[in-house]
Amino acid sequence: MVAEEERGGRPLGERVRSGSVRILIVGAAGMIGRKLAERLAVDGAAGRPITHLTLADVVEPLPLPAAAFDVRAAVADVADPVAARELVADRPDVVFHLAAVVSGEAEADFDKGYRVNVDGTRHLLEAVRGAGVGYRPRLVFSSSIAVFGPPFPDVIGDDHLAAPLTSYGTQKAIAELLVSDYTRRGFLDGVSIRLPTICVRPGKPNKAASGFFSSIIREPLSGLEAVLPVPDDARHWFASPRAAVGFLVRAASLDGNALGDRRALTMPGVSATVGEMIESLRRVGGDEAVELIRRVPDEATMRIVAGWPGRFDTRRARGLGFEAEADFDEIVRAHVEDELSGIGVVAA
Amino acid sequence: MVAEEERGGRPLGERVRSGSVRILIVGAAGMIGRKLAERLAVDGAAGRPITHLTLADVVEPLPLPAAAFDVRAAVADVADPVAARELVADRPDVVFHLAAVVSGEAEADFDKGYRVNVDGTRHLLEAVRGAGVGYRPRLVFSSSIAVFGPPFPDVIGDDHLAAPLTSYGTQKAIAELLVSDYTRRGFLDGVSIRLPTICVRPGKPNKAASGFFSSIIREPLSGLEAVLPVPDDARHWFASPRAAVGFLVRAASLDGNALGDRRALTMPGVSATVGEMIESLRRVGGDEAVELIRRVPDEATMRIVAGWPGRFDTRRARGLGFEAEADFDEIVRAHVEDELSGIGVVAA
Repeated sequence: MVAEEERGGRPLGERVRSGSVRILIVGAAGMIGRKLAERLAVDGAAGRPITHLTLADVVEPLPLPAAAFDVRAAVADVADPVAARELVADRPDVVFHLAAVVSGEAEADFDKGYRVNVDGTRHLLEAVRGAGVGYRPRLVFSSSIAVFGPPFPDVIGDDHLAAPLTSYGTQKAIAELLVSDYTRRGFLDGVSIRLPTICVRPGKPNKAASGFFSSIIREPLSGLEAVLPVPDDARHWFASPRAAVGFLVRAASLDGNALGDRRALTMPGVSATVGEMIESLRRVGGDEAVELIRRVPDEATMRIVAGWPGRFDTRRARGLGFEAEADFDEIVRAHVEDELSGIGVVAA
Repeated sequence: MVAEEERGGRPLGERVRSGSVRILIVGAAGMIGRKLAERLAVDGAAGRPITHLTLADVVEPLPLPAAAFDVRAAVADVADPVAARELVADRPDVVFHLAAVVSGEAEADFDKGYRVNVDGTRHLLEAVRGAGVGYRPRLVFSSSIAVFGPPFPDVIGDDHLAAPLTSYGTQKAIAELLVSDYTRRGFLDGVSIRLPTICVRPGKPNKAASGFFSSIIREPLSGLEAVLPVPDDARHWFASPRAAVGFLVRAASLDGNALGDRRALTMPGVSATVGEMIESLRRVGGDEAVELIRRVPDEATMRIVAGWPGRFDTRRARGLGFEAEADFDEIVRAHVEDELSGIGVVAA
């Protein structure tokens, strides 16, 4: 644990690089939160020993068997300001804020989306601000490319406006603004990272409009049929779960001074069309995998996907050491390695 | 008053253009709010008769002698959700939301700035959303170019990101996002207009960092000395109080469909350096006016002003009929005509 006198004076990035750290993951029961905890158990925080890790979520996160440090599970909802204060009472050095009502639910339940995604974030930031003199942790907020809305230029640069066309995107954009202002005021040391669409998501198909992007890779690699509702030229921006965890770890150890005042960063990713994704699947899984994709055009899904961004220039994030896959083949291989234990590679 | 069955079905812009209207100004005791009320008393709303006007503020707005319609004053603070609900209980057709803690105060009092500028705006939007089925008023929100922060390109376009470097700018950017999302969800029909720095502000010098921009014109035209703390090449973006009122009136009658989903518009203005402003003063007020400017360089003010934007390309707003002055001479003349009853024009 970092000595008390060190906590106030030095930038958090420096503390994380030089000493052992206490970490809090809010939203630890989600897919990315879980994978982040597992990564930290193996690697530490940017190679430094972790002394305490708190896994918090609205449902109890699963235990983490492999950890060589103290792991505590906490059932807490940051939409409750008291719960938020309790979570940061022991002044963790790094707070990962991944808790959110997802896109579809934020659109379906307007009040819940604002309560969790906006008020919850504000409660967490206020809790950090109120946790005592000299406390200024690194806070890593998982934002999303949903902060962008059409019309888009061919390539979306780091100076492009956040004009979201969903309540979820609006809530993420508001949270980014809060993280930047709380950072500028010296209440914490925040970084917001805008995650690409995560692909291939492990597990069962879900009802998210973006779900088919993962399904058309995941299901055929397991010998199952998958439905494709959009044409082959639909283009979007992707990163693997493995890359997303890498972004979070990198954001935790980044030098805040190198970031400056603009604390929201669009993460690198792979720009791919559905047609290119299918050719990657063919190279990894063979023709028999591709034949399991069933084309069932769906106008509603097409309209939604047409409003999503396809390509970014993420030079700020790349310059700060954030790395994604080089192409979609790598994304498919990451899925095979991480979720299928390397099996299912038919045509490699 | 618009018939009840009309209120739900037709776009508000259309209603404002075709019938008489009820108007609410929140923040009516401020300089712009007062001038807006006076303009509405003379012109109506885009040429249409007004039947009711409510002037609301945290202090009681002055009476409006010239109005040919019902005027009600209300002392109310939208930071109180009950007060916000009471203000919209009679379902005004147009709501001007001008109430705000100003820049300096929002920086000095973090909590107050968020309570009024963010929570107050949200309460007002929620009050509108909750005021009954079919109610979807035009809401005009006065935002600010403070939503932009450096580094800037030479000319800031309509697609440039909002990356504010003040709590005030952050709060305005958050409010813009809320106005756009509430509009997209159909709860109201909002327009956020980003006002340039208003110059020449009438009245006494104030302590705002931007105050000198008005002082160096206003004081010399009244035979008083003014202090200039920055060099002549400092550039900024201006509009007169008269132009600002024109923006608000235009925003009230605009066709929402022409706006689309991006409901925040940077307003036109005049890009001028301090040196250019002084030459305008010379043309209107003569050398003796210019001689009343005393150069007292101030490092702190210079640093603040260096972080402010200098030039915008506002083609979206211009295309929608928003008009500012053509040059800084016009801004000075507007001040002479509106505040000095045309006197003081020495060298015209």
